[in-house]
Amino acid sequence: MTVGTRKPVTLGALVARFGGRVEGDARTRVDRVGTLEEAGPRAISFLANERYLAQLGSTRAAAVIVGEPASAATNLPRIVCDNPYAYFARVSALLNPPPRARAGIHRTAVVERGARLGRGVEIGAHAVIARGARIGAGSVIGAGCIVGECAAVGSAARLYPNVTVYRECVIGARAIVHSGAVIGADGFGIAMDDERWIKVPQIGRVVIGDDVEIGANTTIDRGAIGDTVIEEGVKLDNLIQIAHNVRVGAHTAIAACVGIAGSVRIGRNCRIGGMAGIVGHVSIADGVEISACTLVTRSIAHRGTYTGVYAFGPHDEWRRNAAQLRHLAALARRVRALERESAGTEGRRP
Amino acid sequence: MTVGTRKPVTLGALVARFGGRVEGDARTRVDRVGTLEEAGPRAISFLANERYLAQLGSTRAAAVIVGEPASAATNLPRIVCDNPYAYFARVSALLNPPPRARAGIHRTAVVERGARLGRGVEIGAHAVIARGARIGAGSVIGAGCIVGECAAVGSAARLYPNVTVYRECVIGARAIVHSGAVIGADGFGIAMDDERWIKVPQIGRVVIGDDVEIGANTTIDRGAIGDTVIEEGVKLDNLIQIAHNVRVGAHTAIAACVGIAGSVRIGRNCRIGGMAGIVGHVSIADGVEISACTLVTRSIAHRGTYTGVYAFGPHDEWRRNAAQLRHLAALARRVRALERESAGTEGRRP
Amino acid sequence: MTVGTRKPVTLGALVARFGGRVEGDARTRVDRVGTLEEAGPRAISFLANERYLAQLGSTRAAAVIVGEPASAATNLPRIVCDNPYAYFARVSALLNPPPRARAGIHRTAVVERGARLGRGVEIGAHAVIARGARIGAGSVIGAGCIVGECAAVGSAARLYPNVTVYRECVIGARAIVHSGAVIGADGFGIAMDDERWIKVPQIGRVVIGDDVEIGANTTIDRGAIGDTVIEEGVKLDNLIQIAHNVRVGAHTAIAACVGIAGSVRIGRNCRIGGMAGIVGHVSIADGVEISACTLVTRSIAHRGTYTGVYAFGPHDEWRRNAAQLRHLAALARRVRALERESAGTEGRRP
Repeated sequence: MTVGTRKPVTLGALVARFGGRVEGDARTRVDRVGTLEEAGPRAISFLANERYLAQLGSTRAAAVIVGEPASAATNLPRIVCDNPYAYFARVSALLNPPPRARAGIHRTAVVERGARLGRGVEIGAHAVIARGARIGAGSVIGAGCIVGECAAVGSAARLYPNVTVYRECVIGARAIVHSGAVIGADGFGIAMDDERWIKVPQIGRVVIGDDVEIGANTTIDRGAIGDTVIEEGVKLDNLIQIAHNVRVGAHTAIAACVGIAGSVRIGRNCRIGGMAGIVGHVSIADGVEISACTLVTRSIAHRGTYTGVYAFGPHDEWRRNAAQLRHLAALARRVRALERESAGTEGRRP
Repeated sequence: MTVGTRKPVTLGALVARFGGRVEGDARTRVDRVGTLEEAGPRAISFLANERYLAQLGSTRAAAVIVGEPASAATNLPRIVCDNPYAYFARVSALLNPPPRARAGIHRTAVVERGARLGRGVEIGAHAVIARGARIGAGSVIGAGCIVGECAAVGSAARLYPNVTVYRECVIGARAIVHSGAVIGADGFGIAMDDERWIKVPQIGRVVIGDDVEIGANTTIDRGAIGDTVIEEGVKLDNLIQIAHNVRVGAHTAIAACVGIAGSVRIGRNCRIGGMAGIVGHVSIADGVEISACTLVTRSIAHRGTYTGVYAFGPHDEWRRNAAQLRHLAALARRVRALERESAGTEGRRP
Repeated sequence: MTVGTRKPVTLGALVARFGGRVEGDARTRVDRVGTLEEAGPRAISFLANERYLAQLGSTRAAAVIVGEPASAATNLPRIVCDNPYAYFARVSALLNPPPRARAGIHRTAVVERGARLGRGVEIGAHAVIARGARIGAGSVIGAGCIVGECAAVGSAARLYPNVTVYRECVIGARAIVHSGAVIGADGFGIAMDDERWIKVPQIGRVVIGDDVEIGANTTIDRGAIGDTVIEEGVKLDNLIQIAHNVRVGAHTAIAACVGIAGSVRIGRNCRIGGMAGIVGHVSIADGVEISACTLVTRSIAHRGTYTGVYAFGPHDEWRRNAAQLRHLAALARRVRALERESAGTEGRRP
């Protein structure tokens, strides 16, 4: 499916706005984006991965966004730039502008006394803005969202429907929070006493910087005493758990279903693959990449890629090999014994 | 607990309706279902697994549903059929009919101008049906559900409370969607530019076929450009993540906590175990079974069962063996060396 | 951040209330709690882990809670007790009392005919209490919560906003349920028949004991025929999946993102680490500890700690070692061959 929501724009106008250069007819008009494979005659597409070079020949797109190397590979009208995917993102945002706030408070919304709403704010049906909460100018609070007492949402932010923000938590400007996300629930703080658990009050907050996106049904717990902090530009996918007192550094991206235990420190510009886990109280340096499904059990001091996953295969093959794992230490000892003995044999040779 | 909600039915009436044959008194009446262990004198039970054959002797059930082999193992009035578990499912559905739609729009619900509701639709308290949305005849939209602009829900579908459906997404007929599910949030599309992430607009939809069930707090992201597609008859458990542009083939079942990354293609009639993960852009053939907790890191071309999990054990035993994993390549080299040397020794023998 | 919400209290008053003894000035007043590192001059802190002993010297706290061994390590006014962390939890709860119920039904809430509310209950904005549901005295039902038909919530319980409780489910006294939790959705019961899935009606309930806490977006499915049971004092973190007919024993704690498959029995006083998984139909003894990310594939009969995780490392190191895993059975055979041969060699020696 390619979608167009806007009057056509020429390649010339695009480079004037976003840079790069045009090869071919700069008056070529596009009004939508599409993949090389599915784009139609009014769409602009892009090539960000040499793997799809073949599709460049067969695409029906009106124009494409390519890097220097691929430019020679097509005669289509094209924009040549350093980072085609980022360029495409900007063009797509221009052609597919996000829905704007429709200023106003829905008649069914509840805005408690002492809540402060900035200019042009949209409050959806059945949303609740509790006493003392603040919503920044131009922000959209979706239907069914609950913004707790004294919580704060920055300007130009968007909470999709059914988001819950607990009391006192802070969300930065231009944040995007998807449905079902829960910001500021109690951290998992319990003390064992005489075979029973006692709850440790969780009195910290969640503090989220500007330009952060949070996926659907992701949970970020409030701090036990200090705060849980998500720095600016962090991108979180769906169904992620971030425990109390974690700090996630600026511009780090975390894929879906990741679990991060309490008091973890993650650096800036890290990339964490889906379903990865990080145990409590470890620190991860800036620029670290964690592979999908990897469990991080100790701190990582140096940038680089880290992995620990069990390769899959046909079930029977897996069973044969996995069975040996329980004897691996013994196997290593047996090899050592053979080596010692072989050394002895050597010795005995004339 | 065994529950009865309906007037009694005879075994004769059941076989007339669902097939199979009766052994013993066809006039035996039952009004509820139960397990062999807990069924009472008005309940019908079933044996689907030889493992529970012993319980067949001790059950207090009025009647049982069994396969040909087990029929001889009891004197209870019984229905003999090919697939006792499926038969039991049908009998239970007859005795425990799902709640029907109570046609009407709750006074607190919000149905925006331009939304279209089919005949006999039930809209729960505080639900929101946005402009341009369509709800098929006889469907139930639970309390607190949000159906976004121009989204469509088929006929005889049921959304349990607090489900969120984003704009333009499509859900088929007879769908069952459990609470907290989020259909159509933005996929995780971000482009790195100068150490900052730029959002790639997610302009595709989620398109869900007929007879699909979606578990609680499961998230299915909308496509980046094309659509995310869930074909007919797919069954999804709770807390599953399905990323943008995934296609799940018809009648595939996926257990809880599974994560499926972007652009994955899953065939028809697959079974994916709980907490399994599938990395981006791979394809899985029809009829493939993935074991629980297995990470699928490449495409699977042939039906069969695939597994990759690390066997657990007592902590100390695990530690001893796991420690060797970091030296496995070295261990293999050492064995090779011993083999070469031993071959040499052979050679030197008189 | 340290938070104070209450008039100061002396160390003397604390030991009078909670036991232990004071060393130093019993008239020392505190009005808040803090970490050793961040506590200010009006705060009381604690030392529960020798690891932080150094911080005891540098803290600016007015007083500390310590065990016997650490008491000599500081001259600060202090409370000496057996279990400093549990003691701290009690002091923090005294200084940070949970918000009380504000008795009353919000004008936008829906309380259906036949619902029964105890004395002093607070029902939040847009909450729905369905017909036949019961809410115990002094409980708080947050904004947007849905309590289904004939469901029951005990006294002095707190459901945070946007919790969903399905029909007939039971939640005990003093329960705390965080936002997005879904209690009582259908278990994943499906029967394969002729390449199609038939739904098996889930007619059991979820029954939750007293003093249970349930984290954000956690899902607990109703039983297929019998009930799913969470015994008293169980503590569940966020994003946990508990399938149909599971029983979790009293005072067991389960960290975030754990998945527990159908009909699992977990004992009392167990501790299950984050992202662990337990396959269906297994039993786990009392007092068992499961490490994070471990998949439990068979029953555990004896208390102790059990682990099964694949150690992570730099990606290239991992790749070299992981590649050998697929040949582990072969490697073991080769070692056995070398051993046999070497034994032969021995034999041939003069």
